[in-house]
Amino acid sequence: FRRVLFRSADSAAVVDGLAAAFGAAGVEPLPVLVECDTGARRCGVATPEAAARLAERIAQARGLVLGGLMTYPPAGGEAAVQRFMTEAKRLIEARGLTVPVITSGGTPSMMHAAEAPVVSEYRPGTYVYNDRSLVARGVCGWDDCALTVLTTVVSVPAADRAIVDAGSKTLTSDLLGLSGYGHVLGRDDLVLDQLSEEHGRLVSTGPIRLAVGDRLRIVPNHACVVTNMVDTVQLVGAGRPAAQAWPVAARGRIT
Amino acid sequence: FRRVLFRSADSAAVVDGLAAAFGAAGVEPLPVLVECDTGARRCGVATPEAAARLAERIAQARGLVLGGLMTYPPAGGEAAVQRFMTEAKRLIEARGLTVPVITSGGTPSMMHAAEAPVVSEYRPGTYVYNDRSLVARGVCGWDDCALTVLTTVVSVPAADRAIVDAGSKTLTSDLLGLSGYGHVLGRDDLVLDQLSEEHGRLVSTGPIRLAVGDRLRIVPNHACVVTNMVDTVQLVGAGRPAAQAWPVAARGRIT
Repeated sequence: FRRVLFRSADSAAVVDGLAAAFGAAGVEPLPVLVECDTGARRCGVATPEAAARLAERIAQARGLVLGGLMTYPPAGGEAAVQRFMTEAKRLIEARGLTVPVITSGGTPSMMHAAEAPVVSEYRPGTYVYNDRSLVARGVCGWDDCALTVLTTVVSVPAADRAIVDAGSKTLTSDLLGLSGYGHVLGRDDLVLDQLSEEHGRLVSTGPIRLAVGDRLRIVPNHACVVTNMVDTVQLVGAGRPAAQAWPVAARGRIT
Repeated sequence: FRRVLFRSADSAAVVDGLAAAFGAAGVEPLPVLVECDTGARRCGVATPEAAARLAERIAQARGLVLGGLMTYPPAGGEAAVQRFMTEAKRLIEARGLTVPVITSGGTPSMMHAAEAPVVSEYRPGTYVYNDRSLVARGVCGWDDCALTVLTTVVSVPAADRAIVDAGSKTLTSDLLGLSGYGHVLGRDDLVLDQLSEEHGRLVSTGPIRLAVGDRLRIVPNHACVVTNMVDTVQLVGAGRPAAQAWPVAARGRIT
C-alpha cells in the first residue's frame, strides 16, 4: 500500500497555483481531482464540459497529473452523480486522457452507493461513529452509535426539567434538520431542547426521574463536529482499560 | 485585590456535596451563591422562598459561607430580576443572614442593568469581543466587534456563489435566532447561508464579486463559542506585531 496525496480543484486558479508549487519543486507529480457539483451546490464545476476542460488543464500542467473526478453527492442524488460522472468521463476520454478514479462519498447516502455504478471509490466518514442524524435517516440504529458524550445531571430545578453539564461547547449547535440536540440513551422520553454554552436542558412530558449526580450518555446529532470539540476520546467497552484515551490529532488544525 | 473562588448551588444535594468536601479539608470556607431562576428556565431555584431556605442551609453548612444570590437574566427580564432578588434578600435577612452579593449578568442585557438596582454585581462576558448577535440586538455596532474569523475564498463555482474555508468547525452552527452564520465585513450584500464542516457558502442577490484567494473577515454570530474552537487568537491592530498570539487557555477544559 502506497499512500498518495490527492488534491482537488474546481478552478483554473487552483490548478495553476498547484502547478506553480509542484512544477517548481522537482518532486513526484501531484494527482489532482476535478471537483464536480452534482447538485449539492457547494464547491465544484457545474457541468461535465467544465470538468473535462479542467481535467485537460491539469493533465497539461507541469508537476500535476489527472487524479480523476470527485464529488459529494446531494441527498438522494445518486442518479445525478451517475449522469454527471458518466458524461464527464466520456468527454475526458474523448480528449485522450484516462480517469483513474471517480470518487463520491458521504455516510448518509452510503447504502445507495451502488445506484451510481460509475463511481469507483466511496468516501464515508461519519460511519466510524454514526450519530443521531444517521439513526433519523434510517442508516443505523442506536446500537451502532459508537460515540457518546458522558454527562452529569447538575440541577433538577423543576419536576419536568433537568440540566446536564454538556452544552454547545461539547454537543455543538448542529441540528441537521432534527429537533433537539441529542438523544439520551435509554430515555426516549427526554428531549434535549436547549443548549447554552456549558449547559444542556432536558425536558420531559412526564416526571423527569433524574437526580443531581446521575450520569447520562448522549448520542450527539453530528459525530463529526463533536469529536472536533475535544482533545481526546475515551475508549470504553468490553476488554478495554477504561483510562485509554486517543488524541484527536486534527482538532484545531483548521487555520 | 484578593481573588475569591465562588461556587453556585441550586439544590441541597450540591450544598451538601460542597460542605462534605470543604468542611473536611480544614481550609478557608467556600463562599456559595444561591442560583436563582428569574425566568430563563435553566438552572436555579424557582422562588424567593426556596432561595432563602437554601441560603440558610449554606450558612449552616460546615466549610461554607453564604456568598449571596446569582442569576442569569431572561431576555428583557430586569423587572423579574428586581422582584425576585428583592424578595429573596428580604427573606434571607429576616433569617438573620446577610447577602453580600447579588450578581446578575449577560452582555445582551447589560445596557438595562440599571433597571434592576437590587443587583450589586453584573457579569457581562461577550462584550470583550462583541459579535453579530449583539449588533442585531442593537447593543453595539460592527466597529465594536473585536473578534473576526479571517477566511480565504477557495472556490467561486457560480456567478452568485463563493465558498470560504471556514465552516461549522470554525464559525459553529450557533444561529442565536439570526439568519445566516456570520457577517462579512464590508460586504453587506453577502449572506453566509450554509456551513458544512470546513466550508462556508456565500451567496448574493447580485454578482458575487469575489475571486479565489480573496481574504474576508467574518464577524461570527456568537463570539463565545468561536473562541472555543481555536487554540490561539491572533492579535491584530495598530502598533501590534502581527504574529502575536494569545492562547485560549480554557478551551477543551470542559470534561
